[in-house]
Amino acid sequence: MHFQITHTDGNARAGRLSLPGSRVVQTPVFMPVGTQAAVKTLSEADLRFLEVQMILTNAYHLYLRPGSEIIKEKGGLHAFMNWQGGIITDSGGYQIFSMSDLTKITADGVTFTSHLDGSRHVFTPESNLRLQHQLGADIIMTLDVCVKYPSPAEEVRRAVELTSAWSRRCLSEHEKGNSAQSLFAIVQGGVSPEARRISAQELCALPFPGYAIGGLSVGEGPILMNHMLDVLHPLLPEGKPRYLMGVGTPLDLWEAVARGVDMMDCAMPTRIARNGTLYTSRGRLVVKNAAYARDGAAPDPECACPLCTRHSRAYLRHLFHTHEISALRLSTLHNLTFMINLTKFIGTSIQNGVFAEAREEFIKKYRSGDIPE
Amino acid sequence: MHFQITHTDGNARAGRLSLPGSRVVQTPVFMPVGTQAAVKTLSEADLRFLEVQMILTNAYHLYLRPGSEIIKEKGGLHAFMNWQGGIITDSGGYQIFSMSDLTKITADGVTFTSHLDGSRHVFTPESNLRLQHQLGADIIMTLDVCVKYPSPAEEVRRAVELTSAWSRRCLSEHEKGNSAQSLFAIVQGGVSPEARRISAQELCALPFPGYAIGGLSVGEGPILMNHMLDVLHPLLPEGKPRYLMGVGTPLDLWEAVARGVDMMDCAMPTRIARNGTLYTSRGRLVVKNAAYARDGAAPDPECACPLCTRHSRAYLRHLFHTHEISALRLSTLHNLTFMINLTKFIGTSIQNGVFAEAREEFIKKYRSGDIPE
Repeated sequence: MHFQITHTDGNARAGRLSLPGSRVVQTPVFMPVGTQAAVKTLSEADLRFLEVQMILTNAYHLYLRPGSEIIKEKGGLHAFMNWQGGIITDSGGYQIFSMSDLTKITADGVTFTSHLDGSRHVFTPESNLRLQHQLGADIIMTLDVCVKYPSPAEEVRRAVELTSAWSRRCLSEHEKGNSAQSLFAIVQGGVSPEARRISAQELCALPFPGYAIGGLSVGEGPILMNHMLDVLHPLLPEGKPRYLMGVGTPLDLWEAVARGVDMMDCAMPTRIARNGTLYTSRGRLVVKNAAYARDGAAPDPECACPLCTRHSRAYLRHLFHTHEISALRLSTLHNLTFMINLTKFIGTSIQNGVFAEAREEFIKKYRSGDIPE
Repeated sequence: MHFQITHTDGNARAGRLSLPGSRVVQTPVFMPVGTQAAVKTLSEADLRFLEVQMILTNAYHLYLRPGSEIIKEKGGLHAFMNWQGGIITDSGGYQIFSMSDLTKITADGVTFTSHLDGSRHVFTPESNLRLQHQLGADIIMTLDVCVKYPSPAEEVRRAVELTSAWSRRCLSEHEKGNSAQSLFAIVQGGVSPEARRISAQELCALPFPGYAIGGLSVGEGPILMNHMLDVLHPLLPEGKPRYLMGVGTPLDLWEAVARGVDMMDCAMPTRIARNGTLYTSRGRLVVKNAAYARDGAAPDPECACPLCTRHSRAYLRHLFHTHEISALRLSTLHNLTFMINLTKFIGTSIQNGVFAEAREEFIKKYRSGDIPE
C-alpha cells in the first residue's frame, strides 16, 4: 500500500491511496457499509454506477455467515462479491461488544455468543487476523476492545491497554505471512484525552501503515468527538492514512476532514434511506410525511441520481407506504450519491484551497432546513 | 388501439398491438405484474433495461393506496410511475373476491372490505370504470365476478350472468367519455365448457376491442385450463387480442400461445424469485439449497442477465441467507429476463413457422430438471 498526500488546506488533506490490484482510492473517501459482503439493497453494478471506491465489510458477520472457508475457496471477498473496488474488513471488535451477550474478555482474547444462534465462539488477536487473511480484503483491522459511552475511566484504561497488546500480537501474526493486505491499528480511549494520547502513542510506535480512530460516534456527540480528533491530530503520523470509523453525518464529514481524517465509513446514509429519510443540500427530507403525498417535485431537485432524475416525492412516498422494496434501493442510491458527491466536493475544495469557505457555505445551507419545494 | 396479426403457425399468432402514445407491443407478450404501480423490487429503469413492453397494475389496490385522485392529479399512471411502456389496469374483481372479507354482491355492484383497514367500499361497474379512467392505463378491464375453483354450477352460471350484465354497463359508461383507453371484456365460466361458451358469446356480441380470459390458473391445473382455451378458441373474434389473465409458468406460456393467446401476465416469476427459485432452460433452481453453498457457477450459465453475468450461486445463496434484499431484486431481474426472452423466442418460432418443434424441444429440456453444474 502506498499513500500520497497531494494537497493540504489547513489540517485537511487530499491524497491518493494505492491498494493491491492497481486499485487507487482518492481521499478523502466515504466508504459505504456492506457488513455482510453486500451494501444493503444494492448490487455490485449499483456500486460501480455510484463510483464507490471502497466499502467496509465485517469479519465478525462473515465469520458467522457464510464462513471464511467458503469465501477463501471462492477466491476471497473481491471474487466472492465480484467487486473490483477496494474492501476493508473490520475485525468485528465493535460488533462483538455491541451485539453479543455474555462476552468474556481475557488477556488472551474474547469469548462471545453469536447473535444468530447463541453458539459460543472465541477470537484471539491471532485467529481474527488469520480470519481476515482468509477473507482477503485490501485493508484489514486489528482486533480491538471497545467500551460503551460513557464508561468508567478504569474500563477505558483497560480497553486501551488490551487494544495495544492485541494490536502488537495482530501485527506479529500479520508479519509471519506474506500478505499484500495492509493492517491498520485502531486507536481507542473513549472521550478521555489522556487515554487517547496513550493509545495513539503506543500504536504509533509500531510500524502500522495506517491508523483508525475507533470508539467515536457512539453517543458522545460532535463536540466531544471533534475534541478527540483535535487531541489525536498531532499524535498520528502525518504521512499515513487516518480512518475515522463509523462517521458520519454530512456535517461530521466536514469536521472530520478539517481535523486531518482521510477515510470514513458510516451505515447511517443507507440505514436512514431505508426508513425514507433523504439527504439534500438543505437538510433531511422525510419523504413519508403526508406533506409529500401530492408533491410532484424530485426528492432533491439539485440531485442527478437515478431516483431524483426519474421520480417524484409523491411516487416515492407511495412506494414506501405500500412497502415496495424498490423504495429502499432508490433512496439508498440517492443518499450514497449525496455522500459520495459531498466527499468529492470536500476533496476538490482542499485541492483548490477553499476548504474553510466551502465548509461554511455548506453548513449554512444544510442547516437552513429549507427543503426546496 | 390497433391490433395486427403478422404471422400465424397453427393456432399460434404473432402480431403487433398499437396503443395510445405511439406505444407498440409485439405479441405474444408476457406482462410482469406491478400491482401497486411498481413491479416488486424493480425500478422503472430496471423495466426499461429488461425491455418490458407492458405491465399489469391493479385498480383495487391503487384505489385504496394512494387513491385515484392523486394519480389523476399527477397525470395518470404513466406520469406517476414515469413509465412510458404499456399499462393495463385490472378492474380488481379478482382481488375483491380473493382478498376481501364480507364481500356482498348485488345486481348493482359489489360491497367489499379493504384488506388494509377493514373499511367498507362499493364498486359498481360504472364507478370502477370511472376509477380506471382516472388511473389512465392504456388498456382497462371490465368489472367481473370471479368464482373460486371448484364452485357449484349455479354459482358459475350466476357469475357469468352478472359479468355479462356488468360488462355491458362498463362499455356503456366507457362510451360516454372520449377516452383513448381500450376496454377489454373478461370471459368467465370456471371450468364449465357450456358456461365459457355462454360468456364468450354474450361478450363477443358487444364491440369490445379485446377479450381477456379470466378465472383460470386458480387451481384447476393445466389439463382443464388448456381444455377451456380449446373451447374458447373458435368463439373469440380472430382479429382481436386475447389476454389470458394470471398465466403462467414457462410451460403454460407455450400451451396458451398454442391455443391462440396473445397476452399473458403472471405474478409467479417475480414471487418465486423473491423466494430464491430461479427459472433456467432446464427447470427451476432453488438457490437456497445447501448444495449451492460453494457453487461458483452462474445461477443459469446460459443466461445473460445482470445476476448471471456477474454473480455465482454461492454468492446469491449467501445474500438470501443473510436476508439481503438485493437477492430479491437480482433474482427478479433473472426470472423476468427468462420470461421475456422465452416469450420473444416463442414469437420468433411463430414467425419462422417452427412453433411446434420449438415447443417440443423447449419442454423436453425444461422437464429434464438437469440443472447445469
